[in-house]
Amino acid sequence: MTEFRASRRGLLALGGAAVAGAATSGALAGCDSGSSKTAAPVVAKVPFYGAHQAGIATPAPARLAFATYDLTVDGSPQENLAALRQLLQTWTAAAAAMADGKPVPGDSNTLVAPPADTGEAYGSSPANLTITFGVGPSLFDGRFGLASRRPAALADLPMLPPENLDPARSGGDLVVQACSDDPVVAFHVIRNLARLGRGTVVMRWSQLGFGNATSNGASQETPRNLLGFKDGTRNIDGSDAQLMNQHVWVGDETDQQWMRGGSYLVARRIAMHIEAWDRDYLADQQHVFGRFKYTGAPLTGSNERDTPNFAAKDASGQPVIPVNAHIRLAAHENNGGIRILRRGYSYTDGIISASGELDAGLFFIAFQKDPRKQFVTLQRGLGAHDALNEYIQHVGSGLFACPPAPSGQGRYWAQDLVG
Amino acid sequence: MTEFRASRRGLLALGGAAVAGAATSGALAGCDSGSSKTAAPVVAKVPFYGAHQAGIATPAPARLAFATYDLTVDGSPQENLAALRQLLQTWTAAAAAMADGKPVPGDSNTLVAPPADTGEAYGSSPANLTITFGVGPSLFDGRFGLASRRPAALADLPMLPPENLDPARSGGDLVVQACSDDPVVAFHVIRNLARLGRGTVVMRWSQLGFGNATSNGASQETPRNLLGFKDGTRNIDGSDAQLMNQHVWVGDETDQQWMRGGSYLVARRIAMHIEAWDRDYLADQQHVFGRFKYTGAPLTGSNERDTPNFAAKDASGQPVIPVNAHIRLAAHENNGGIRILRRGYSYTDGIISASGELDAGLFFIAFQKDPRKQFVTLQRGLGAHDALNEYIQHVGSGLFACPPAPSGQGRYWAQDLVG
Repeated sequence: MTEFRASRRGLLALGGAAVAGAATSGALAGCDSGSSKTAAPVVAKVPFYGAHQAGIATPAPARLAFATYDLTVDGSPQENLAALRQLLQTWTAAAAAMADGKPVPGDSNTLVAPPADTGEAYGSSPANLTITFGVGPSLFDGRFGLASRRPAALADLPMLPPENLDPARSGGDLVVQACSDDPVVAFHVIRNLARLGRGTVVMRWSQLGFGNATSNGASQETPRNLLGFKDGTRNIDGSDAQLMNQHVWVGDETDQQWMRGGSYLVARRIAMHIEAWDRDYLADQQHVFGRFKYTGAPLTGSNERDTPNFAAKDASGQPVIPVNAHIRLAAHENNGGIRILRRGYSYTDGIISASGELDAGLFFIAFQKDPRKQFVTLQRGLGAHDALNEYIQHVGSGLFACPPAPSGQGRYWAQDLVG
Repeated sequence: MTEFRASRRGLLALGGAAVAGAATSGALAGCDSGSSKTAAPVVAKVPFYGAHQAGIATPAPARLAFATYDLTVDGSPQENLAALRQLLQTWTAAAAAMADGKPVPGDSNTLVAPPADTGEAYGSSPANLTITFGVGPSLFDGRFGLASRRPAALADLPMLPPENLDPARSGGDLVVQACSDDPVVAFHVIRNLARLGRGTVVMRWSQLGFGNATSNGASQETPRNLLGFKDGTRNIDGSDAQLMNQHVWVGDETDQQWMRGGSYLVARRIAMHIEAWDRDYLADQQHVFGRFKYTGAPLTGSNERDTPNFAAKDASGQPVIPVNAHIRLAAHENNGGIRILRRGYSYTDGIISASGELDAGLFFIAFQKDPRKQFVTLQRGLGAHDALNEYIQHVGSGLFACPPAPSGQGRYWAQDLVG
């Protein structure tokens, strides 16, 4: 380990000797009190083990690396299940190490072998890294003998017009959501898990996302999406245990005990027609959302956090928040109390060659206890009426069951499903 | 302006009232001294006007948004030149405002008009934003009557095997390099310039890039590339005026006075075959670079900054730094003193559908006073012999002349060329 330990900052090698942050600190890695030459870097860590997986209730760091993987095993169900179990043991140990600021376990120092860790994150703080794992509906086909363990809530998503899904950006047997304030650290996770799974899984699709550097963390300002509007003002507060239990964490109601304490992840790649949007009048943009653009206040209020008054009418008798405004259709008040926990990241992937427009939008992730009753219900209403539909299209999709976190070292992801 | 000014943090609206950082601070936006609820956000700004454009000698923030644009004008050379001049005036005013933490100039508050600024960066600090502009060889064709103003140093790049260039990721009449510690702020620049140029330009291609969050800024650790090696150890220090004048800034030698104080930008999208690399032994990886992976020290030294000893031989008489090692071939000692200023960012753009491998690599940007004598010479040597060629391929390319910065308000990009 000599050469490895000689790494100048050596955070990954030393593994936490300089821990100065935690899940709730929201501190950005590398920040200090002004004297940037002398202060030690902040090593912000989020606990990996526990009752729930990190990356759901925990504050959203500013960068996302998201990937889904397909299993390539072709043996008997027993053999395939054994391979899956082995994979999840390996992945969990690696994920726990990375979340703790350590390299992928194994030998990275033998000269005549490939290093266990790919190395691009050596010396970097985990920067609030969270790694969240889930399994897709396709895992419950015949390959692993798990058909009877499929939760009813993991029902395939129905068609939700006006979606136009690209199969190359949809689905997957397994999912990993890596969030960190350092994009290299987040990317390092999905890359190394792919590498560790070689021979058992292949990456199916991946997505990088970004938020405002100044808008995330504990002292979070609401981030703006690429339409220029604050996005997430009425989101569930992950630190509100009552709301989380009510809307996000799977509880006694589940038909599959292995999901108790888990949550269901819905991912949607939502393309935005930003060129068309940019030509729209400010008044129209504000009517589409039902909010003022700059303050984020509802059209019936003056501060971002004001509760929208959906009954308010203007002098001519029209609703101040239009009937097809996004916040009206999405509001829990107008959906029988339904809420979801959202974790949205902006993305841009270059130019659409056919149109010369920017390929950009929102990578939408939502957590909930039952997608059938939550995301699907909300999206059906939005899909039918939302004024925003003129400017967006859902082009990728994924649904995954995220089990509870391993309770401690030696336990692994989805152990109660595959163990 | 009432509604606009009511923005809670209002940095963009208020434009610098809370300036607390500068080009050399290296502070990340939003960092504070620990009490994240109360401290004012750091508004790190880099001066826009001056002798040289920002984004060349200034420290590299952690995020890149890079775009090239093609002019779509089809009038007489006089008409086209007038349109180009108008564009550059508009762009320069917008870029100066954005670098100063202000929105795109114009009316963003009239309800019955599209806002002048697209809004996604409202409330965000510029976070060391720099916006660097250049013109490509194609600008000097017949369209603008500028053929006689083309610098000899802006000669089209020759074929540089083993390149395999994608025309959809190469070239462009104009280029904009936006760097910031906030990816939304960087993206906001290339998007709004595209919007302001509508009718005159279309975006040709774009590239997002990222560096280690903890590795950039003034107290810079050398960032690691996606091969896990430190990249840039022997780079030119942008604060070293003598080296900059010797290698980077165009001086008296130029045949085109409008380029004096400017620099030439070469961009290369360098794809990395990271799956193959990840299977390579540590010893081989270190021989490919000529450095130790974790410390970054040359194979003949023990510290990153140690000068490589290219003459050193091992017990069996072989060079310790192999004859085809990357650092040997790239070293100024072995290239008649040739140096370039590099500004590299990692990228990943999802999965290569044919192979299932990650589409990832290095977006390489280099500045120099004459690409013919610098980048082309270096790359010819590397292309022919570099051990790294087994793991990389140049797949995109651009060459641009970046004029000096406008000296002050009212002046605009490339005014001495098109004015």
